[in-house]
Amino acid sequence: MPSDQGLDFTCPIPLQQYPNIVLAHGAGGRLMHTLIDEVFAKALSNPDQEAEHDSAVLPHETARLVFTTDSYVVRPLFFPGGDIGELAVYGTVNDLAMSGATPRYLSAGFILEEGLPIETLQRVVHSMKSAAERARVHIVTGDTKVVERGKADGLYINTAGVGVIDDGVDIAPKHVCQGDAIVVSGDVGRHGMAIMAVREGLQFESAIESDAAPLADLVAQLIDAGINVHCLRDLTRGGLASALNEIAKTTGYGIAIEESAIAVQEDVSGACELLGLDPLHVANEGRLVAFVAPEDAERARDIMRAYPDGGSAEVIGTVTGGTPFVTMKTFGGTRIVDMLNGDQLPRIC
Amino acid sequence: MPSDQGLDFTCPIPLQQYPNIVLAHGAGGRLMHTLIDEVFAKALSNPDQEAEHDSAVLPHETARLVFTTDSYVVRPLFFPGGDIGELAVYGTVNDLAMSGATPRYLSAGFILEEGLPIETLQRVVHSMKSAAERARVHIVTGDTKVVERGKADGLYINTAGVGVIDDGVDIAPKHVCQGDAIVVSGDVGRHGMAIMAVREGLQFESAIESDAAPLADLVAQLIDAGINVHCLRDLTRGGLASALNEIAKTTGYGIAIEESAIAVQEDVSGACELLGLDPLHVANEGRLVAFVAPEDAERARDIMRAYPDGGSAEVIGTVTGGTPFVTMKTFGGTRIVDMLNGDQLPRIC
Repeated sequence: MPSDQGLDFTCPIPLQQYPNIVLAHGAGGRLMHTLIDEVFAKALSNPDQEAEHDSAVLPHETARLVFTTDSYVVRPLFFPGGDIGELAVYGTVNDLAMSGATPRYLSAGFILEEGLPIETLQRVVHSMKSAAERARVHIVTGDTKVVERGKADGLYINTAGVGVIDDGVDIAPKHVCQGDAIVVSGDVGRHGMAIMAVREGLQFESAIESDAAPLADLVAQLIDAGINVHCLRDLTRGGLASALNEIAKTTGYGIAIEESAIAVQEDVSGACELLGLDPLHVANEGRLVAFVAPEDAERARDIMRAYPDGGSAEVIGTVTGGTPFVTMKTFGGTRIVDMLNGDQLPRIC
Repeated sequence: MPSDQGLDFTCPIPLQQYPNIVLAHGAGGRLMHTLIDEVFAKALSNPDQEAEHDSAVLPHETARLVFTTDSYVVRPLFFPGGDIGELAVYGTVNDLAMSGATPRYLSAGFILEEGLPIETLQRVVHSMKSAAERARVHIVTGDTKVVERGKADGLYINTAGVGVIDDGVDIAPKHVCQGDAIVVSGDVGRHGMAIMAVREGLQFESAIESDAAPLADLVAQLIDAGINVHCLRDLTRGGLASALNEIAKTTGYGIAIEESAIAVQEDVSGACELLGLDPLHVANEGRLVAFVAPEDAERARDIMRAYPDGGSAEVIGTVTGGTPFVTMKTFGGTRIVDMLNGDQLPRIC
C-alpha cells in the first residue's frame, strides 16, 4: 500500500498496482472506485447511467414491466461456446423473453474472491458487454463485493432484468390448452455437456460447444408472425424434462412427447452415455420450448429453424388430458419422463 | 436419497428430509422445487407473482423508473440490530430512495453454501419478509444457486430494486450547488461497529445495535414538505467520509463540515478508538446525507429528527467553492477528510 495518499485522492490508484483482487476492492474506498472507473465503467457505461449515482434513472415507461433475476456460479468460468459473463446476460434476457417481453435493462452484481486476477474480471466484463450488445439490452447499474480467499470461487455474478410487454401479449403457463403443440427450438443438452466435458476431461473430435444465445428476437419473430403462443419456457437447469414437468404440474395437463423428434448432437449423446446422464435432464442456455395452438405448430417450427443455430427445431409432442405426467414414446414403448432427482450437474450456470 | 420416486413426482420431498442444503437444492429438479415451494414461496409469495413463471409480470407503469442492485455478503449473518436479510431489503430500497423514487419491487437471488442449515435460511427469508413489509416493497422474483462447501460463506444474497419517480422530482449529484447545506439524518458509525464488535468480541454495557432501517419514507417526507433537495446519498460502505468525497469529486466543489455537529454514540466512538478506526469511515445502513438549499436546512433537520431513530440529525456543513476536498473543522483546527484507503472493514454489508 503506498505510504502517503493524503492529498492526491482525486487521482485513481493505477489499476496495475494491484493485479489481483484484494479485500479493499470491495470496501467502498479508493480502490473500489478505481475498479469501478477502470474496469466496469469503461466497458459498460452508457447514456442511462449517471456518474456516481446509487441507482439508474431510466426513461419514462408506459407499459407492463417484467422483472427477473438469476445468479451465475458456473464452473469453469470459461468453457467452449461461452463464459460466465455471456451466461449472465443471456440467461436473464431469456427469462424476460419467456413472458413475451422485450428485454431493456440489466443490473450486474459481482461477488469477487480475493486473489482473482483483474485480467480475468476484465475478460468477463468485456464478454458481458458484447453479449449485451447482441441481446440489445443496457447494463445500467451494478455492485461489487469482495470476499476472502476460499469464500467464493473466482467470481459469481447476479443479473436482474427489466423488460416491457406490448399490449395484447400474454404468454404464461395458465394459457396452455389441451391439444397444444409442443415445439422445441433446436437440439438439446449442449450447454450442460460442454461444461461437463471440460470438467471431466472428455475428449471428442471437436469440443462440444454451449448453445448459449439470446432468445428474445426469436420470441419477437413468433409473436410478429401471428403465432398463437400460449406459453414459453427456456430449457436451463433440469433441462427439457424439468421444463415439461413444471408445466404439467402447474397446468394439471398431461404431456406426451416423441423421443425421435428430439434432436441431440451425436457427441452430446455419446458424452451423456459415458457419464450416465439423460440428455433431457441436461441444461441448455439457448433453447426454448413453445406451447402453441396446434394449427400454428409447423409455422412456429419453421421460424425456429430459420433462427441462428435452430436447424433442428421440431414439433416434439402435444398437451393431453389425463394426469399431469410427461410421457415419452420411445423406440421400445412409452416411458415416464421424471423431473431431475439429485445433483447430477451442479453449477452448470 | 429415497430409492423410488418414479411416480410420486407431484408430491414435494418433505423439507425435513434434508435439514441442510445439498447441491441438489440448486440443480433445477425436485429438491429445488421443494425449497422454492416450502421456504421461499410460503414467506414471500404475493399477488404479483404467478406460479412457475420465469419472471414477474408487473402492473402497467407510467413513470420514470429507477433500477439498482446490491449484493450482501455480511459476516456474521445475524448481528445486534439486524441480519443479512434485513440489510438485503433496506440497502437496496435505500439506494432507490436516494434518487427520490418510491421503491416498488425487489428481486432476490440467493447463493447458498452446501451444508447451510435450512433453518438458517428460513430465518433470513422471514426477516426479508418483515423488512419488505416495513419498507412497503414486494419481493416478486427470485433465484437460488447452491455451491459446494467452502465456496461461499453460508449464504450470499443479491437484491435488485425497481422504483418509480414522480414527475418533477429530480435529485442527483449534478444539482448540488455552492452554498448548499449538508444535513445528516442521525448519528454515524453504528452499523459497522455493531458488526466489528461481534467479530472482535468487544464487550460494552449494552451491545452496539446496527442502525439498519428503510429511508424511503423519510425522503418522501422531505419532498412532500417542499424541501429543495438537491442530492441524497445513503452512508453505507466507506461511511460519511466516502459519500462526501464522492460528491466533491463528482461536482468539483469543496465541502466543509464541522466535527462537533456530527453525532457519534459514546460506545461507537469508544469501539472505534479501540480498533483504530475513524467513525466517519464506518458504514451505516439507516443514515443519509442531504444536500439542500441553505434556507431549507433547519426544516430538513427537524423532519429528520422526527423520523424514527433520527434524534441526532444535524446540519453538519456546507458546499464551498475551491478545490474538491472535504475539510473538517475540529477542536484543534482543520483537517482533510480523505476517502477510505484499504480494507479496514471487509464484509460489513
